[in-house]
Amino acid sequence: MAENRTGDVEAAVREHILLPAQEMAKLGKATQPVLTHAEGIYVFAEGGRRLIDGPAGMWCAQVGYGRKEIVDAIAHQAMVLPYASPWYMATSPAAKLARKIASLTPGDLNRIFFTTGGSTAVDSALRFSEFFNNVLGRPQKKRIIVRYDGYHGSTALTAACTGRTGNWPNFDIHQDRISFLSSPNLRHAGNRSAEQFLDDLVKEFEDQIEALGADTIAAFLAEPILASGGVIIPPKGYHARFKAICERHDILYISDEVVTGFGRCGEWFASEKVFGIVPDIITFAKGVTSGYVPLGGLAISEKVLARISGENAKGSWFTNGYTYSNQPVACAAALANIELMERDGIVDHAREMADYFAAALASLTDLPGVAETRAVGLVGCVQCMLDPTRPDGNDDDKAFTRKIDERCFELGLIVRPLGDLCVISPPLIITRAQIDDMIAIMRQAISEVGAAHGLQMKEQVDV
Amino acid sequence: MAENRTGDVEAAVREHILLPAQEMAKLGKATQPVLTHAEGIYVFAEGGRRLIDGPAGMWCAQVGYGRKEIVDAIAHQAMVLPYASPWYMATSPAAKLARKIASLTPGDLNRIFFTTGGSTAVDSALRFSEFFNNVLGRPQKKRIIVRYDGYHGSTALTAACTGRTGNWPNFDIHQDRISFLSSPNLRHAGNRSAEQFLDDLVKEFEDQIEALGADTIAAFLAEPILASGGVIIPPKGYHARFKAICERHDILYISDEVVTGFGRCGEWFASEKVFGIVPDIITFAKGVTSGYVPLGGLAISEKVLARISGENAKGSWFTNGYTYSNQPVACAAALANIELMERDGIVDHAREMADYFAAALASLTDLPGVAETRAVGLVGCVQCMLDPTRPDGNDDDKAFTRKIDERCFELGLIVRPLGDLCVISPPLIITRAQIDDMIAIMRQAISEVGAAHGLQMKEQVDV
Repeated sequence: MAENRTGDVEAAVREHILLPAQEMAKLGKATQPVLTHAEGIYVFAEGGRRLIDGPAGMWCAQVGYGRKEIVDAIAHQAMVLPYASPWYMATSPAAKLARKIASLTPGDLNRIFFTTGGSTAVDSALRFSEFFNNVLGRPQKKRIIVRYDGYHGSTALTAACTGRTGNWPNFDIHQDRISFLSSPNLRHAGNRSAEQFLDDLVKEFEDQIEALGADTIAAFLAEPILASGGVIIPPKGYHARFKAICERHDILYISDEVVTGFGRCGEWFASEKVFGIVPDIITFAKGVTSGYVPLGGLAISEKVLARISGENAKGSWFTNGYTYSNQPVACAAALANIELMERDGIVDHAREMADYFAAALASLTDLPGVAETRAVGLVGCVQCMLDPTRPDGNDDDKAFTRKIDERCFELGLIVRPLGDLCVISPPLIITRAQIDDMIAIMRQAISEVGAAHGLQMKEQVDV
Repeated sequence: MAENRTGDVEAAVREHILLPAQEMAKLGKATQPVLTHAEGIYVFAEGGRRLIDGPAGMWCAQVGYGRKEIVDAIAHQAMVLPYASPWYMATSPAAKLARKIASLTPGDLNRIFFTTGGSTAVDSALRFSEFFNNVLGRPQKKRIIVRYDGYHGSTALTAACTGRTGNWPNFDIHQDRISFLSSPNLRHAGNRSAEQFLDDLVKEFEDQIEALGADTIAAFLAEPILASGGVIIPPKGYHARFKAICERHDILYISDEVVTGFGRCGEWFASEKVFGIVPDIITFAKGVTSGYVPLGGLAISEKVLARISGENAKGSWFTNGYTYSNQPVACAAALANIELMERDGIVDHAREMADYFAAALASLTDLPGVAETRAVGLVGCVQCMLDPTRPDGNDDDKAFTRKIDERCFELGLIVRPLGDLCVISPPLIITRAQIDDMIAIMRQAISEVGAAHGLQMKEQVDV
């Protein structure tokens, strides 16, 4: 029966769903594994097979699955008041959540606009930057600066900001309004020191501002860590130096914390506590509800808002909103999720696990086929290369990595496949023992797939 | 205590929320009424005051509030499996829902892409039209044709498609890619008959295609009824004639049924059953979950997909997706909502109520200050004018109408204020007696506010 049910789900997906990364030649043919239930850090596939959820859903399942406190809050709110128009009516969950998030954001980022997820959060942040400059009488100050390898969403505008060039074919990604800077990926530094690489990145930004004119640039939009672009951790000091340049030219610094927010990097938000800056706007989603109900939003600096409100408003109205802005059930889920994280000290736990997680990933570097590992908080990756002297992301390494991911899946671990990276960002509740389980599976998978590719164990190096 | 709680909610909204229609001069000062709970077609404000929910939230609460069947389905799914990445994993709720919706859409619109609401649904439909033409090797065929008074969402691209010019100030609404046609509002017909007016609208479309070149136009994007633009019902035959023109020029007809879908017009979808066309794409949201959890999506024609899939795919990938595409809790809510609508025959009920609702609204035309009423299914409006010989939507009439809305609120009915229109789109479960209650309140409010403006009762006309 379970098999029939699974077969039925597979058939319905094949026949009736357009997937988010749909290979059009296989439309109607390809299937996906079917998940049936989940508990803690585990999800269960057909036949009851248990898998560690390595990517935490899609970087979102911070508190894990089966959390009755969140479910009860959702059910209560859905029963009492599932909906109210954000245009005309206020509700307690949205109000309390806004106050709560304002208390967690850095600096004076105390005003919240709620959306339905990360894409709409970033889209609204960019629309806000447009509105901001129009009200200030600077209609030409509209350009958005982003980076190669950045990812910011899937609306037309946020997708146009993606620097993951693999997403470009057959979409009109380039827009006159958007300019790209180099990826701050230290693997591109070549012979340069990290300091020299950073100096060059800073110079590129300054040169671009000079070339375009600061009076044409509205915003710098940046993830603290370029997550789906490859878990790229910029060189130390990068964000602070970029922020200083933005301040000098009155460019809004929008920190896209959709992935890094809500504990992923061991802090509620990474911008200040991990990377030392207070941005003008922070976008968030994912971890805010641990994925239980769709929700996203942005937090805006009071200082920024003061420039276009009150006596400076000039009769303007911010007319941007969603049917599901302030949605009560989503906000109730987020409140319960945050309360749970506070009660159980889950953000502290993530911070405490960070070194252990990084070391565990790094322990894999003795394996042939592992070029390097990277980690911040509880997000990390293993870069898999058959020959580390070849360029990153070549097709052979992608195929090699895909096989490792597939073998991990067979052995009980979901890994998010991303080019030549095995990306791991587990639920924040993961224990040391569970990290060990995860690493043991990866070790076995990399070893086996490596051996099948004829890789030899690396020589032991005396230390 | 209830008062304290309400005060607390109001303060948090004032201090911490940016609203969807925020007058910037009043940021931090204005408050909204606080809703505490809801049941059936009623919502309750501070002090337990009961109000009929005239707009059904925001055109969405089809089955009304307190629906335990939906709440149970939400709670069950949130407990069992609240999330799975749509990129890699399938779940039963999304699969079943896609199959169910495909069975409700007209023609061969059998493939569903799920998003988080109406804005992302339309945004994805437009991105699909871009992808479609790029894969077909027609990169210049990208223009989108929309209408004045149309509304399609609040992402940068969908907002740029809004023909509600009141939303334009301080946003960069005009784009090279988007062209506007006249609103099909019969009140603009002047001395022309409806047939002549329609002929002129058709000619305008044909002329625009001629001027721009059909090979530059990707899509015609249209609500069956222009909802938030003013409950505008196009002249009879409008959609069929526009659809025929689209077919002739290989222009995708995208029917935006975010408001009209899921029973609002007395049918699951209005395009075919009410307006006689099978579009290429239908977008939906709102009623699909009755607002309990954010969800939206689009249904695409198999014939359209066949042109760019299988052997025609040319190696292309549709890379467009949201973290919350296929979100299990949202899909479970939608399934329960649709099952409830089917079990209780709620769409049939809405269709059966339609004439009564239209007649009840029309009964108000004997009042001074009522210029006309309009209705389709269970969406309608009362156009309020102090002097019907003045132009529609002048500031005096808007102020007059706002006072009527405020008086309705005091008397126990929420009316969606929209310029000089009182818009009513109640939960679809509304009964004749409840329609009578609603109309009685409107009659009293219009009479009282009209009298305060010195309006005299209209003369009785013999019939």
